[in-house]
This record gives sequence, structure tokens and C-alpha cells, in this order.
Amino acid sequence: MGVATSAEPRPPAPAVHVLKAPYLLFLGDAVESGFAKTALGLRDWAGDKCLAEHALPAATVTTGLPRMSPAAAAAAGARSMVIGVANQGGVVPDSWLPALLEGAAAGLDVVAGLHTRLTEIAPLHAAALQAGVRLIDVRVPPPGLPIASGAKRTGRRLLTVGTDCALGKKYTALAIARGLQARGIDAQFRASGQTGIMIAGEGIAIDAVVADFAAGAAERLSPDASPRHLDVIEGQGSLLHPAYAAVSLALLHGSQPDLFVVCHQPGRAQILGTPGYAVPSIEAVIAQTIAIGRLTNPAIRCVGVSLNTAGMTADAAAEEIARTAQRIGLPAADPIRGGDAFQRLLDACEA
Amino acid sequence: MGVATSAEPRPPAPAVHVLKAPYLLFLGDAVESGFAKTALGLRDWAGDKCLAEHALPAATVTTGLPRMSPAAAAAAGARSMVIGVANQGGVVPDSWLPALLEGAAAGLDVVAGLHTRLTEIAPLHAAALQAGVRLIDVRVPPPGLPIASGAKRTGRRLLTVGTDCALGKKYTALAIARGLQARGIDAQFRASGQTGIMIAGEGIAIDAVVADFAAGAAERLSPDASPRHLDVIEGQGSLLHPAYAAVSLALLHGSQPDLFVVCHQPGRAQILGTPGYAVPSIEAVIAQTIAIGRLTNPAIRCVGVSLNTAGMTADAAAEEIARTAQRIGLPAADPIRGGDAFQRLLDACEA
Repeated sequence: MGVATSAEPRPPAPAVHVLKAPYLLFLGDAVESGFAKTALGLRDWAGDKCLAEHALPAATVTTGLPRMSPAAAAAAGARSMVIGVANQGGVVPDSWLPALLEGAAAGLDVVAGLHTRLTEIAPLHAAALQAGVRLIDVRVPPPGLPIASGAKRTGRRLLTVGTDCALGKKYTALAIARGLQARGIDAQFRASGQTGIMIAGEGIAIDAVVADFAAGAAERLSPDASPRHLDVIEGQGSLLHPAYAAVSLALLHGSQPDLFVVCHQPGRAQILGTPGYAVPSIEAVIAQTIAIGRLTNPAIRCVGVSLNTAGMTADAAAEEIARTAQRIGLPAADPIRGGDAFQRLLDACEA
Repeated sequence: MGVATSAEPRPPAPAVHVLKAPYLLFLGDAVESGFAKTALGLRDWAGDKCLAEHALPAATVTTGLPRMSPAAAAAAGARSMVIGVANQGGVVPDSWLPALLEGAAAGLDVVAGLHTRLTEIAPLHAAALQAGVRLIDVRVPPPGLPIASGAKRTGRRLLTVGTDCALGKKYTALAIARGLQARGIDAQFRASGQTGIMIAGEGIAIDAVVADFAAGAAERLSPDASPRHLDVIEGQGSLLHPAYAAVSLALLHGSQPDLFVVCHQPGRAQILGTPGYAVPSIEAVIAQTIAIGRLTNPAIRCVGVSLNTAGMTADAAAEEIARTAQRIGLPAADPIRGGDAFQRLLDACEA
């Protein structure tokens, strides 16, 4: 490593991953849409960043975007080739490599959130060096993360928290940020996980940060802002999940949120991946979030509940939403369904 | 990486760092005992593992152990050369390198818990390969750490928790384990930090583990045991520390302790390193530890308080200990001072 001299001041470490748009979405050889969740999420939530898709001949999944070769996409203005597909094990199979090499050679940054590190794929690393493009593993934390200071930052913050993993914290935060922006509020989505980072174009995967620095990473994720600005921060895990609560706590302490929304999936009984653990009640999550979160923000409060009713009929969902709002005494909504209930949740976020 | 075939089963990943004793303690060029805290702690708490010390000519600090060259120590039976000294920045200065090279050449593993990774010091790495010895950075987590399962393990566990960092959680756990062993109890100290690992000869630095795996690392640290066995686990940080609470929580959830002891330093008003945060009360830490810890062990309970009275007169310490025991309604003691108060704390740990 070179050493900076006083004549050559070292630039500050990048605070977060920053991706260049527009994206070419790479679908690999996906034949099931479940494996292309990232590409489909990008299409739905970052459509303005998505220029085209590229898939191998075996693929049947499509985002509906124009199909382009990497070279054609680069010529059309694409800046990054984003791997929007995962397979069992999170590795990059050899069959994907020619397409990725073509992307790098065409001048596209290659972006992934897999277990395999792009930089550890020797031919791709060499191609990227040669072409002068970046290989960005969005799960790798940026360098220079600080230990948390606990100091109060300016601006306002809302965090989505959950009764479990994988039930809508990211899309709830996105929907709230978009909904408030549509009302003219100065709101911004802050991504704490890999798909969120690709959607936002920047962020930090908090769960991949060494424990000592996790709260400091969360502090950096939502920096000082103007007094009326609202950061809407994607939550992770659950304070009542026996494996991931430390991630949730670091994000809570470092985010020092003024407001939080509890995300829940009606009907889910067991915590994912940990047999014997029941999904906690929304009330228990509200109480635990306040009990822990008040350390860094004594004014923390819950403003509402987001329900993932994807598996329910419209009538059943509406009934569940109304029943939950009454029981908790706060607005409840499924942000994906929207409607009046969601507008009431936005009112509460805005108040 | 090679791929294991069925004919060549891959051995299981080592669960924790395991160090070979006896140790040669390396004191570098230390002239202040504060920088040799690790060596002095090893002398005091792992005297049976410490064979000799080795220092550079400039050093004035001594552990009182025999002084030996690395070659002489190896000939006398030493297996590891432990860097028992730190300097500002946690780096290995060039002036230490000849002694470390001599240790490796003499067949000693070289062990450190510094920010500099021993394996990144090229000449030392080469010397270790040549001599067939290990370079062990005890802060580097072992490979293959799992995501926590939350499953109840057999045996019993006690965790030391704190009102802040750096006030006696390691030495409290050591003293309790030793005190119970002296009573014939099947108790074992479990190290979660660098000095503790050197003292115990094994362990995992939980704060250096990626957040997603931190609770899983804590699960591995205190594995299944016989029903009457008690693991006495070194705590880290504080649940009410704005930077390190995630580490404390991961250790709490993964340890699933039956019992805990709160460690506190009378007179410390401010949390270390985070201006504006008052040290919480012992009562607040008891309440928070139970509120969070009951997720993985609903039977968790506090058995007493450990007070670090190092800066107090014997009379003032005795008074503070008695007053604290009365206020909390549980045994309180300074384990380093021992005495009847400490025996009552051990009674409570044993009950």
C-alpha cells in the first residue's frame, strides 16, 4: 500500500458503495423467477436505473426490458452490469463467465451481491483491470468504517423493523420513501442490504460488517442532513431473531431513528431457519424496539405497521389490516396494495 | 481451493483458536507496564502456561519470569512465542521482527492479538512456512463459523456482562471459574477476547466476527456439555454501549446463559469513548440483560455483582461492596480482593 504524503492528501474513504447507472441486468440461465428476485426487484423499484437485460440462451425468465448484448448496452449508455440472479450456493458458475467478461470488456462495471467475490474470479479480475472497470461486491463493506460515536446527528430518520427476516422491510422502506417524495417531502431510501443497495445505487450491507463496526456503519449510512430531511432506512432481521438480532440492534443504535414501522407477515408462525422459535407479536417488537432504541434516541416511537399480505385475497387482506390497526392503535397497511390505509400510514410518517 | 472427495473426508473446521503452551512471553521494547498488560495478565492468570519472557535491550518492563532467548525457550519446552505487548496503533514495529523471526526459526508458533496481521508481515510469513510453525492472530475468527441456530444446548452457562467496556468482565469470569474449580465444581472459563484467548489457550474474539455470524460464533464458543458442567463466559462491551451493544447482544443470545454477573466500576460516570452517554445503573443492566437474554434462555437470571474497586482503599471498597449487595439484593464482591464477599458470590453461582 502506498503511503500518502502531506503533498498528496489521501481522499476520504468512500462512505458507501456507489453504483453507476443505468444498469444492464444479467439473468444468467434462470428458469425460475424466484432466482431472479434481484433483477425483478430492480425492474420494479429502480426502473429508471434499468436500461436492458441480458440472459444466456437457456434462460426463460425475463424482466420485460429490452434484451441487449453487453456491448450493445454499453453503446446505449449502460454503466454497470448487475448480476440480478442467484443460484443455490450463491456462486458464479463457469457458464456465466463469458457474458461477464464481455461486460467488463465493453466498459461496464460488474456488480454482484453473491457469496462468491467477483474479485476472486481470476479471469474476471484480469479483464476488469485491463478494461479499467470496477468489480463491485455490494456485500463487501466499504473500507474505513468507524466505531460508532453515538453522537446525535441532524435530520430525521425512520427505520423499518420486523417480526422476522424476509417479510418486507426493504419494500416497506422503499414504498414509504416514494410515497413521501410524491407528497413533496424531502425523503430518501437508505439501503442496508444487497438488493436495496442495487436499487438505491448506494448503501452498506450491515450484516456483512464486523460486529465491532456494525453500529458505526449504520451511523455512516444515514449522515447528518437538513432538519426536515427524512432518511427511510431499510431494516434487517429482527431484534427477536436468535441468529440476527445483533445485526438488527446495530442498525437500530446506529440509525438512531425518530420513527419506526413494524413489518409483519400475517400467518407466519415460526421464525425462519430457527425451529422452535415463534414469530413474536407486533406488540412485543414495538416494546423491544423502544426499550433498545431509546439508548441513542430517547424520543423513538412507532408510527405504524406494514403487513405483507401477498398470499391473501384482497378482502382478507383488508380485514387483517383493519383488525391490526385497531388492535395496535396505529395505522396499518400493506404498502404494496397501497390505498387509503397506506395513505394513513404515510400521514403518520409525516406527522 | 482443493475439493474433498469421499475418499478424503475434510476434517471439521477448528471450532476455536487453540494455542500450544507453554509460552515465551515477548515484551518488545516496553518501558511502561500499561503496554505490557497482556503479558502481565498471562503471568497472573495463566502462570502454568508461561515458561519465560524475552525482551529487547531497550525494555524495562518485566514479568519476573526467567529471561530466555527464543532458542533457549524452545529447548526448554516452549511451544509458542506470544506477543504480550502492544504499542500505540497496534502495529508490529520493525525492531521486533528479528526476535519474532528467531522464535519462528526455533520452532515456536508466533501468537498475537494486534491490528497488524502476522501473516501480512512477509518475512515472518516466509520464516513460518520454512520452519513449519503457525502464525496465529487470535483476533481473526476461525473459519467455518455457523449462523446461530438458537437451539438449546446441554450443560450450564454463566456470562459476565458489564455497565461499560474495560472494567473487569474477563477477570471476573476467570476468578469465578477458578473459585468454582477450587470447590470441585466442573467449571471452565470461555474466552471471547484476545487476552482471554491467550490465557485460556483457546476461544473466539466475538467482536471481530462479521455481524451475521456473531451469535453463531458465541454458540460454538460454549458447546454442549454434561448437565452439571458450567461454562463461565467472558463478556464483551455492554448492552447499553452505543457502539458495542451488538457484540454484547450476539454473545448473550449465542451463550444462552442460565446465570449472569454484572460487572461495574464504582465512580465511572461516562461510557468509554462516547461523550454524552452516562454509565447505566447496575439495575438497568440487569433488566436489559433479562429482557434481551430470555429469547434464547427464558430462565436467565442475575446471580450477583462484580465491582472493580482497584482505585479504592480497602475500607472504601468493603463499604461500596456491602452497600451494593444491600441495594441490589444479591451478592456483590470484588473478585480480585476475594474474601467472604467473593465466597458468597461463588455460593450464588453454584446454587
